[in-house]
Amino acid sequence: MVVLPREYGRRRLLRQIRQAGRVPRIELANQTGMSRATVTTITAELLQAGLIEEIARPDATPDTRRGRPRVDLRIRGGAHTIVGAKISCRQLSLVLLDFEGAELAELERQLPAESFSPGKLADLFADAVDDLARGAGLTANDVSGAGLGIAGVVQAAEGIVYWSPSLSERNVALGEVLTRRLGRPIFIDNDANLVALAERSFGLGQSRSDFIVVTIESGVGMGVVLGGELYRGTRGCGAEFGHTKVHLDGALCRCGQRGCLEAYVADYALLREALSMPGDDPTAPPAMRIEALLNAARKGNATARSILDRAGRMFALGLANLVNIFDPELIILAGEQMQFDHLFADDVIAAMRTSIVQIDKPPPDVVIHKWGNLMWAKGAAAYALDNVTELSLAGLRDNTA
Amino acid sequence: MVVLPREYGRRRLLRQIRQAGRVPRIELANQTGMSRATVTTITAELLQAGLIEEIARPDATPDTRRGRPRVDLRIRGGAHTIVGAKISCRQLSLVLLDFEGAELAELERQLPAESFSPGKLADLFADAVDDLARGAGLTANDVSGAGLGIAGVVQAAEGIVYWSPSLSERNVALGEVLTRRLGRPIFIDNDANLVALAERSFGLGQSRSDFIVVTIESGVGMGVVLGGELYRGTRGCGAEFGHTKVHLDGALCRCGQRGCLEAYVADYALLREALSMPGDDPTAPPAMRIEALLNAARKGNATARSILDRAGRMFALGLANLVNIFDPELIILAGEQMQFDHLFADDVIAAMRTSIVQIDKPPPDVVIHKWGNLMWAKGAAAYALDNVTELSLAGLRDNTA
Repeated sequence: MVVLPREYGRRRLLRQIRQAGRVPRIELANQTGMSRATVTTITAELLQAGLIEEIARPDATPDTRRGRPRVDLRIRGGAHTIVGAKISCRQLSLVLLDFEGAELAELERQLPAESFSPGKLADLFADAVDDLARGAGLTANDVSGAGLGIAGVVQAAEGIVYWSPSLSERNVALGEVLTRRLGRPIFIDNDANLVALAERSFGLGQSRSDFIVVTIESGVGMGVVLGGELYRGTRGCGAEFGHTKVHLDGALCRCGQRGCLEAYVADYALLREALSMPGDDPTAPPAMRIEALLNAARKGNATARSILDRAGRMFALGLANLVNIFDPELIILAGEQMQFDHLFADDVIAAMRTSIVQIDKPPPDVVIHKWGNLMWAKGAAAYALDNVTELSLAGLRDNTA
Repeated sequence: MVVLPREYGRRRLLRQIRQAGRVPRIELANQTGMSRATVTTITAELLQAGLIEEIARPDATPDTRRGRPRVDLRIRGGAHTIVGAKISCRQLSLVLLDFEGAELAELERQLPAESFSPGKLADLFADAVDDLARGAGLTANDVSGAGLGIAGVVQAAEGIVYWSPSLSERNVALGEVLTRRLGRPIFIDNDANLVALAERSFGLGQSRSDFIVVTIESGVGMGVVLGGELYRGTRGCGAEFGHTKVHLDGALCRCGQRGCLEAYVADYALLREALSMPGDDPTAPPAMRIEALLNAARKGNATARSILDRAGRMFALGLANLVNIFDPELIILAGEQMQFDHLFADDVIAAMRTSIVQIDKPPPDVVIHKWGNLMWAKGAAAYALDNVTELSLAGLRDNTA
């Protein structure tokens, strides 16, 4: 037998209880390979800290030997209140969860601009958290921590945003700015990473250990889960799928470089080409112009079809490269807006399949999962939940290590 | 405290002893966090199994309390004899190592053709292993196991080669064929993966947990180490860097698809373009034609320079995509042949750096590591060493679990 520090056991048991929903102690010993004595000791600590609670079993017949009612353990929902949030173009979406993951409230708020100074963003965020908490009969002081997903290049561990379309400055220590403003620990990450966490925690990735989530909004994002954990790269800026190059000296991208995948498939890329279509009105709102382009393609307009066709083929090429590099079990295409249906089309998936290395084994599954900003916010909450759990366990460690 | 199965402790201690070279028991307890009692029990088992040995310390003054000489532990070199091998175009390279990793013999053998039936390859391999063992005063029966690196798409866990330029058939259970022919366990893997293992075990990756090795021979290969472990993908066929697409409907690749990186940078791609150069003789040996192309470029021939220039720029684009996806600490460019110097040039690395996502942090290190086939074979030996160690530990488990 080998002995490891107790903090390992606390983390392991808490995770097991969370996964199980409700579970008797003896099952925990079986599921984790820990001794019954260890499980008893550690769960007593977790009970005392209020992170878990005992609950009578529905079929509870008393333990005949000891005469006590049989009980299950479960996460104590009231232990912590968690905020998850997503900032997207002109919109802030928030959810409030209890420690068990049950939703207490949600809120969607229009933003007055596309990008903000860090201080202004902190004000908007704090204000929204106040309103969100009030919606559940609580105050912002009841919140144990919050997660925020933001588009751009984010170093999650240090809470730094190197660049984001939602911020008017580069290299912002946004985690620190928000934490100071709210007086609560705030954890930030790239929004696509948090969608991947949401898929792992609540969605299609629950039973998979290696999968990739590709998100399509105004840009193209990616989150990679390997061995059940989010893969972030060493500088915290890997998984920049949208800026992988699909053409040497190719189309100009918003990032200033040429040939990025985004420069072929993002909405601004489609609109740039739509300028060549008779009847396109460059002063109309982007969403209307995209809709007109899609309608024209549906009606058989050759130019419109050519624009969407190339975008689809470039997207297929990019997906094939991901398969050739990662060889995942599953690719989840996640997006909210119907306007990207041309990228989620069967012929795009088929084109991807003909561009991967051909072996006598089936290619990875590709599934489409459409969801709204609130689901992205739930991913941010899952991230905050993990971090708040770690903080709680660290508190225990100080007392009894 | 948390209790884990003893096999975890055996693996952990054996690895720690291997890393340390030689180490006293008390240091092992400090380094692993295990109790001294656990270290004493497990090292006693490993000693009895002959996997490690005690060795007097150079500065050995006796332990004053117990009157025993102080000793270190180290891996017992004589515990196992391991073969590492690499098959490349018309060449088989082998090394013989002891269990400590010390080299006992090496052998390079020309092969009569470029590809073989599985049976013929097994005969050639068995014959070479015989000769290799004899060179160290041993026989093939003294070999505990062998690793073989082979180009192509390999499922290492099951020992299946889906496709390789060295085999005349597809979907070959090569691990099984070789194991049956030699009567010893044979472990196979993609050759670039084994170069990555060699870099981790003996080379530039020893102190890095996340790095990528890109190999250039007749094709382009890649091995990815994440968290200190080789990343293989779920079907065992990820990391196919050479077949990532760098151009939609681009140049034709040997694999039958279009736009693969290899179709722009491999030697056959250069020679295909060299056909357009006056004086190129398509009947001359490929190595001579490549040499002539490189010489012409050095002398300023515009066509030759254009051929090499595009190859270099495409290679830079491919490398930039790896950085954008993996965000590694380090990229090691590993190749044997000077003929690929144009891909390892400063301007190629500079072009890569301008094509990655720009943040205010330094880009990953890129280092060039040239080494011969015998070093690749050493990577295969490192792989076999890991596997033979696991088999030895499994044997212990049967006795005492």
